[in-house]
Amino acid sequence: MTKIKGRTEIAQLGEFGLIDHLTEPFKAERKSTIKGVGDDAAVIAASEESSIVVSTDTMVEGIDFDLRYFPPKHLGYKAVTKGISDVLAMNAIPEQITVSIAVSSKISVEFLQDLYDGIKFACHEAEVDMVGGDTSASINGLVINITAIGRAKNEAIVYRSGAKVNDLICITGSLGAPYMGLKLLQRESRVLEGVVGEKPQFEGYEYLLERYLKPRARYDIIRSMAEENIVPTAMIDLSDGLSSDLMQICRSSLCGARIYLERMPIARQCNALGEEMHIDPVTAALNGGEDYELLFTLPLSQRDKIASLGCIDIIGHITEPNTGCFLVTPDGGQIELRAQGFVKQA
Amino acid sequence: MTKIKGRTEIAQLGEFGLIDHLTEPFKAERKSTIKGVGDDAAVIAASEESSIVVSTDTMVEGIDFDLRYFPPKHLGYKAVTKGISDVLAMNAIPEQITVSIAVSSKISVEFLQDLYDGIKFACHEAEVDMVGGDTSASINGLVINITAIGRAKNEAIVYRSGAKVNDLICITGSLGAPYMGLKLLQRESRVLEGVVGEKPQFEGYEYLLERYLKPRARYDIIRSMAEENIVPTAMIDLSDGLSSDLMQICRSSLCGARIYLERMPIARQCNALGEEMHIDPVTAALNGGEDYELLFTLPLSQRDKIASLGCIDIIGHITEPNTGCFLVTPDGGQIELRAQGFVKQA
Repeated sequence: MTKIKGRTEIAQLGEFGLIDHLTEPFKAERKSTIKGVGDDAAVIAASEESSIVVSTDTMVEGIDFDLRYFPPKHLGYKAVTKGISDVLAMNAIPEQITVSIAVSSKISVEFLQDLYDGIKFACHEAEVDMVGGDTSASINGLVINITAIGRAKNEAIVYRSGAKVNDLICITGSLGAPYMGLKLLQRESRVLEGVVGEKPQFEGYEYLLERYLKPRARYDIIRSMAEENIVPTAMIDLSDGLSSDLMQICRSSLCGARIYLERMPIARQCNALGEEMHIDPVTAALNGGEDYELLFTLPLSQRDKIASLGCIDIIGHITEPNTGCFLVTPDGGQIELRAQGFVKQA
Repeated sequence: MTKIKGRTEIAQLGEFGLIDHLTEPFKAERKSTIKGVGDDAAVIAASEESSIVVSTDTMVEGIDFDLRYFPPKHLGYKAVTKGISDVLAMNAIPEQITVSIAVSSKISVEFLQDLYDGIKFACHEAEVDMVGGDTSASINGLVINITAIGRAKNEAIVYRSGAKVNDLICITGSLGAPYMGLKLLQRESRVLEGVVGEKPQFEGYEYLLERYLKPRARYDIIRSMAEENIVPTAMIDLSDGLSSDLMQICRSSLCGARIYLERMPIARQCNALGEEMHIDPVTAALNGGEDYELLFTLPLSQRDKIASLGCIDIIGHITEPNTGCFLVTPDGGQIELRAQGFVKQA
């Protein structure tokens, strides 16, 4: 590791730069380590035919959630979604999670019960076992860490690195809704601060709230693709935003990408709230993050097969190396994508 | 889960009570889940013959460590030890870890480099690969989560629940040193607060500091036992203190225990500092915690075999169910053990 002299602020490197800097000197040496740092999950040999995939995620109060408007039950549910979404992005089936929490004394047992009820509900829905974890004290705020463990046949595992030139770029579901849901919650929280007897105005935007507070991981899609023998060439889950996550695929696969503005699936409620709050829904879709949908690439030959599954949109295609990642507008203009990451709330 | 009405403080249930309360409604349903909540690590089927074990641990600034006297490199090392110690306690070989950190802006890149240098050093020593993790922001303080993954043949896995009446109770290494090391660091930190040009007085107590700041997980013992075909009947790692951890074995194995005061391995430096600081070294040994030694039980027939390994002490034996857990003093008196847990520093 090259030592940096003096004091360097984390902001100077950025999140991705920091991770690269810290993890670069680690080389995998165990025979059982099939894939270490650098994908949605690590891949560990289980038997001759199958592997275990492992992913870990931390959610920090005041950064990843605000307890003034995040009900504990939803928080538990979302933490599980976030964890298993990484496992799904390897085309693996999530089977177990562990849950570690650090809690300050301001948190009551009833709050934690609600949190664990949400975890239990999400586990039940996804057919995942909660198999361990730990509970520690915290001086300030709540920290939740979920480690998700899944399993796949070796030939089924999909990495970020397998996209090929001319592959189709596909996404599940719609984009931008979680970000708009967060903006709505923040607005209502500001408006009602100190006001007694008034209720927040959420009518017509329930879908946005649900997508932010209770996102569902796309195990349905992974199952459908398995049934149809569809194996993506590359895949990632949409946590940092379409721009950032597509750029990760291009970086790992050494390729470029073109996506088309008119093909972007943006929910109607996003457009409506965007107009009301003067937020560009396309920016929300590109850089909002926390969609927990799947972004994957497929050979052109699979076009009809994937279309038949429904709820999957083909938004573009992979291009030659060193051609960059661009959004193509209806008039043929090209806008370069930027890895902005999720705009943290605190 | 039985709902508790109103607001209940976490302190009312205690750490163990809280974990039981929260995890009780979770039942394992996956065929691959061999052991869920309730041991040092979860056990997940890998192949016909072998299993993967997974454990997760969180360390929180101000609770588990104080950065005024905990060098980041040692902290990284210790976090790895804490993680892999749980895997070893299942009689499994640690092979991979993931590292998640949440950091506030007061932390510099150089600090994190030192932290990861310590992680790397510990991984190298234990022949463990660092295979993933994540980095998030934090409002206050540093949080480190380590998930440790290991592997064992199914017949080699040791649970807390296998202790039998008359089994020998064995421990590796010595007890109480980490707790005394912490007390020394806290004293010197208090004495030197605001003082310029003075150095802390650590002479003669280096062993205590090393055991607190840079504890080494006992993979050496697990390897030696494997070579000698010694398989404990029950095992746990000493993280909460001998009393608490022995009581966990007795609770899981439905048995009692007697341990003998004169057989307790307490380091000489513990006695010396104990005298100086008026701390009972026996209390440190029983309830100090963070020893990261192994506590295990063995059939009487294995007595000579285990003695030949060296650095393992037989401190007592398992007794009939419902006979309690007691420390026997040289005059034949019996003191009931209490699960005090590690006395947190903050």
